[in-house]
Amino acid sequence: MYNYISADRVQSGYEAWLRYRPVPGASMPEWCASIAVTEADEILESAVQELERGIASLFRLRPSLIRQRTGLIREYTGSIQQAAATTDGGHILIGTFAGNPQVRQAFTEAEQEQTAEEGYRIRTNVEDGSVTVAGQTAKGVLYGAFHLLRLLQTGADVQKLDLLENPSNPLRMINQWDNMDGSIERGYAGRSIFYKNNEITKDMGRIRDYARLLASAGLNAIAINNVNVHRVESQLITERFLPDASRLAAVFRSYGIRTFFSINYASPIEVGGLATADPLDPEVAEWWKQTAHKIYAAIPDFGGFLVKADSENRPGPFSYGRNHAEGANMLAEALQPYGGLVIWRCFVYNCKQDWRDRSTDRARAAYDHFKPLDGLFHDNVILQVKNGPMDFQVREPVSPLFGAMERTNLMLEFQITQEYTGQQRHLCYLVPQWKEVLNFDTYARGKGSTVKQIADGSLFGKSGTCGIAAVSNIGSDANWTGHLLAQSNLYGYGRLTWNPELSAEGIANEWIRMTFGSNERVIAAVSRMLLDSWSIYESYTAPLGVGWMVNPDHHYGPNVDGYEYSKWGTYHFADCSGIGVNRTAAGGTGYAAQYIGPNTELYESLESCPDELLLFFHHVPYTHVLHSGKTVIQHIYDSHFEGAERAAQLMETWMELKEELEESVYQQVLERLEHQTEHAGEWRDMINTYFFRKSGIPDVHERTIY
Amino acid sequence: MYNYISADRVQSGYEAWLRYRPVPGASMPEWCASIAVTEADEILESAVQELERGIASLFRLRPSLIRQRTGLIREYTGSIQQAAATTDGGHILIGTFAGNPQVRQAFTEAEQEQTAEEGYRIRTNVEDGSVTVAGQTAKGVLYGAFHLLRLLQTGADVQKLDLLENPSNPLRMINQWDNMDGSIERGYAGRSIFYKNNEITKDMGRIRDYARLLASAGLNAIAINNVNVHRVESQLITERFLPDASRLAAVFRSYGIRTFFSINYASPIEVGGLATADPLDPEVAEWWKQTAHKIYAAIPDFGGFLVKADSENRPGPFSYGRNHAEGANMLAEALQPYGGLVIWRCFVYNCKQDWRDRSTDRARAAYDHFKPLDGLFHDNVILQVKNGPMDFQVREPVSPLFGAMERTNLMLEFQITQEYTGQQRHLCYLVPQWKEVLNFDTYARGKGSTVKQIADGSLFGKSGTCGIAAVSNIGSDANWTGHLLAQSNLYGYGRLTWNPELSAEGIANEWIRMTFGSNERVIAAVSRMLLDSWSIYESYTAPLGVGWMVNPDHHYGPNVDGYEYSKWGTYHFADCSGIGVNRTAAGGTGYAAQYIGPNTELYESLESCPDELLLFFHHVPYTHVLHSGKTVIQHIYDSHFEGAERAAQLMETWMELKEELEESVYQQVLERLEHQTEHAGEWRDMINTYFFRKSGIPDVHERTIY
Repeated sequence: MYNYISADRVQSGYEAWLRYRPVPGASMPEWCASIAVTEADEILESAVQELERGIASLFRLRPSLIRQRTGLIREYTGSIQQAAATTDGGHILIGTFAGNPQVRQAFTEAEQEQTAEEGYRIRTNVEDGSVTVAGQTAKGVLYGAFHLLRLLQTGADVQKLDLLENPSNPLRMINQWDNMDGSIERGYAGRSIFYKNNEITKDMGRIRDYARLLASAGLNAIAINNVNVHRVESQLITERFLPDASRLAAVFRSYGIRTFFSINYASPIEVGGLATADPLDPEVAEWWKQTAHKIYAAIPDFGGFLVKADSENRPGPFSYGRNHAEGANMLAEALQPYGGLVIWRCFVYNCKQDWRDRSTDRARAAYDHFKPLDGLFHDNVILQVKNGPMDFQVREPVSPLFGAMERTNLMLEFQITQEYTGQQRHLCYLVPQWKEVLNFDTYARGKGSTVKQIADGSLFGKSGTCGIAAVSNIGSDANWTGHLLAQSNLYGYGRLTWNPELSAEGIANEWIRMTFGSNERVIAAVSRMLLDSWSIYESYTAPLGVGWMVNPDHHYGPNVDGYEYSKWGTYHFADCSGIGVNRTAAGGTGYAAQYIGPNTELYESLESCPDELLLFFHHVPYTHVLHSGKTVIQHIYDSHFEGAERAAQLMETWMELKEELEESVYQQVLERLEHQTEHAGEWRDMINTYFFRKSGIPDVHERTIY
Repeated sequence: MYNYISADRVQSGYEAWLRYRPVPGASMPEWCASIAVTEADEILESAVQELERGIASLFRLRPSLIRQRTGLIREYTGSIQQAAATTDGGHILIGTFAGNPQVRQAFTEAEQEQTAEEGYRIRTNVEDGSVTVAGQTAKGVLYGAFHLLRLLQTGADVQKLDLLENPSNPLRMINQWDNMDGSIERGYAGRSIFYKNNEITKDMGRIRDYARLLASAGLNAIAINNVNVHRVESQLITERFLPDASRLAAVFRSYGIRTFFSINYASPIEVGGLATADPLDPEVAEWWKQTAHKIYAAIPDFGGFLVKADSENRPGPFSYGRNHAEGANMLAEALQPYGGLVIWRCFVYNCKQDWRDRSTDRARAAYDHFKPLDGLFHDNVILQVKNGPMDFQVREPVSPLFGAMERTNLMLEFQITQEYTGQQRHLCYLVPQWKEVLNFDTYARGKGSTVKQIADGSLFGKSGTCGIAAVSNIGSDANWTGHLLAQSNLYGYGRLTWNPELSAEGIANEWIRMTFGSNERVIAAVSRMLLDSWSIYESYTAPLGVGWMVNPDHHYGPNVDGYEYSKWGTYHFADCSGIGVNRTAAGGTGYAAQYIGPNTELYESLESCPDELLLFFHHVPYTHVLHSGKTVIQHIYDSHFEGAERAAQLMETWMELKEELEESVYQQVLERLEHQTEHAGEWRDMINTYFFRKSGIPDVHERTIY
């Protein structure tokens, strides 16, 4: 039984975009007075609960339930006024085409067929004014219910609804990098909500609320543990943890979300006590088959394994002289009988490089490793490819693996948690960055062969075994994401995986209205803040696509040479004359040639290479003139002075909203923006000082450099 | 009852310089056959035990004991052959002038008076061939016994002994930076031997062996916990830990070593529950008095408090607007009735400096803080001053506080643990460095006013309340110091505090003979390795006295800009034209003017400033020509190429000793030297590459720079 949303939860930001605040001036549509459902289904039950909760909160009136047969649906008793349980004035009818004849009758057969497995239709019945939310599956209905609530939350016109929505990407996944000791790798919002002291949490309330957030944004899959699978986490696939994991999975299942595990490739040895984890060893294959059997006994809709193998000191098939296809296929065979997937990460490179070696190029590694294996992976294997060739920098080119693997299932991997983009202490709305990646043209089937068409499977005719994954940015902080405004990245990620055609502005607008309400001043100001923020962060950090320049290990704060003499393959090669990495085929590492025709030409040529990626592809003198007309060195100075100033303006913009916002919300964001302002000044001064000292070239505007 | 020294202990290096290996060709002097003692005293008992142990091991013959009255001395029973208990052929007579008439008779009154409180005399009785080891105190006798054993160990001529030894420094102290969780701040040889899991160790065997090592080197005081006093350690002064601490202190007492505690200045609040730790608050003063009373009840010879206050975020009198004299004197008053001392560290500086601020100079801080307080400290307060103004770098000038505080008790602080000098993975024999400091002329009372005369009290007429302290380099590693050859630093430190006139060569020779035996090839090779090692380490690390260039926090390995943009006040200011810190009075921070006359002139002038400190005092172009005739940049290249080569030669020199050394000893040192060789190459390449990239000036010899 849901109560009113508590004041504490609201003030902390816990309710996020499901706050359901009353829209000023909006009156309750009559069809909100009751909800009609006939099917007994746990996902439909989630939809009913959410509609009830939303409507009760939006309109201060609890809808009645119309049940036409006994099922899961509960009788409601509550202290607040209950709407008359009638169909006068209409109601919300929810259900599947197959399971509810009334729902089925509202649509033609063609309309039903146009609705994808996880899609939905919402339609106003002009006769009785009721609204039907319908899908092929309960999942689709749940997404439809959230859509209907979003319309109500954002004050949209709900008079005559007739909508069809189908998700673009089959897999819309979240990767938790949570460790069982309760820490989160690259987590910036407190501890894990999944684990504590090497046990799985018993707090299913918080897990359920997370599932609500994910489902409301359209997500349908989750890997519940860190891809770096340590000792305790290796036991997740055993009886020790499967009962608790099964309870977690049940919560997610009731919101249409399938659970995956990250596994340790050395599990046959470390868990199974075998002498080897060689994928071609029959004992190993058999061990994995038995393991899969146990997992599916506990979690019938288990999604599969997420695997980081032979990467950053993790074990993998290389130890046995096997390639990644052999390594992944063995696991795929174990999962295949149950419909499980192997999601195999392509983040494989030499992390013990000698900094003196200028020919080895980490950017090349994923392509060099995986391109030769195209076509060798089983049908239930998906390669998960980071958006860029390096590691979630504020600016990178798109990975050349997209477009290079026609005969292999691929997923795109983003990072919502802001490892290299300000760690949720700086504002950085990432949807614009992700859209650039999704819209990138690979030329794999000629012009217009975009990354989003590879992710959604349309370009190479894949279906089901593709999509998008991203590393979560949530933790135990009351507001989930540390920086309240970073909630927009989780929301935006979900919306974008559902429909990559949505604009960054449109998503921001939805999120702001749902989170902060309909105050137009707030909407305009926060929208501007979000949309400017990526460019601002980029402008005061590493210049022109060269990346890094952060403190080692934790990756926060400026350190120009932080990775320059390290083993990580992440260099800028700045000297007194110039800077940048020559990745051309002509004289460089040859990385530029991993792209297809027009992109190779674009990046290979100093003339055509876009400014923002110049130093990723070319080593140039500080006096090189950009397309912008500025020299490289003057661009560094200008962008850093301006960037720090624009960061300060973000804070000022926010401060103008003081009277419009609740104090608790205003203050918590203000504190982050104050830190960002100060820290952007650190970035400005360190980067400018470094390059002034190194180049000896003064700022033409004679601003202060130390 | 001591057994023969076990093979395990010998092979690991546990016995260190008290290994007492038989000297080939040496026969036992007849007077070794028995030991005569009359006084019942625990320190004399330690002397007897050590003589017994040493002689038994050296000559495979256990001496008999001659007791002339019943005291602490035990009857011996042993399985090895026991020497005939007679005085035929002489014996070793040990005792104090006051306590043993036979001892007294062996010396004139004048001779007795020349013997200082902790001094000793050793004399052969020409009539009966016996040897008398005598002192004013049992401590002196113990030191004499170790001296006698050293003579036997090193194969010295012991035919006609007539020695007088008085220690130069009243306090000869070791500071343990051990935490009660078992970690050691800046420890490179395993965990603490004092603490584990927030308890004091019960393993008094290891503590006793440490006390033996310290006493054998002449040391007489120990602070048993880290100067950074954390939560648990703050309780050391309470009933919770005093009983166990008292047992520790008893072990040290039996080797003539007084125990000190490092205390938390905020103890009245954190331990006592008071609202303040203000030194002028009567309640606070009273609390400390009561605390002192409790401590002395548990440890009657307690030495006093070592205090790091208002330094690196530690609490102190500044919090209450009081100065360091007020802060220290209050504690001194609490300890005064018991003869206790307050040792107050002068390592006070702003550790939150803005790197942009080029006028603030950490090097100035100790002098600026303490010079105005000269004469204001109580008689039982001693200021403990690090040898240099920064922090134990491989090369620093001597702290200008030496010579500046005529009316204040001072102690000199060295660091045996190799925080900035290779962390016991690189070889760095520090005795030559310490000798340079001790011999430094401050000019405080005109020419010849050396630091050693300030430490020993002679220059300003102090007695008793002065001396030398150093941070220990030992831990739970079987060989105490991680690098077996680093034992020489602990030994050398003790010997030097006893007698600063000893040469680095002489000390090395003693240590090598005691540790490795009398093989002349080994002695020559290891001696050369030790004596070259400081210069080698300096040559491939930070150049020309500028310091730092290490990785932050752990301080290991090269990182030229590691501290350049930090808050720690440790900068080199390298740009494309030059490098160094201008600390002159003319245009710089004025630090050079903190010295007295001739030294200010020496450092102030670019012409006279010694090459090895050039960049500490001056910012110069890379093309500046050193006294050596090289430019600064060429010096950097040359010293780094040569330094790495010389590091490799250390290894080769050691490898030539393979046949001369026990395998276990050979191997453990070889592993360290292999690492040093490889790591010196890292230093060479990073430093050279950094400066080549920054200056653009090529190596005239065209060697490989990356």
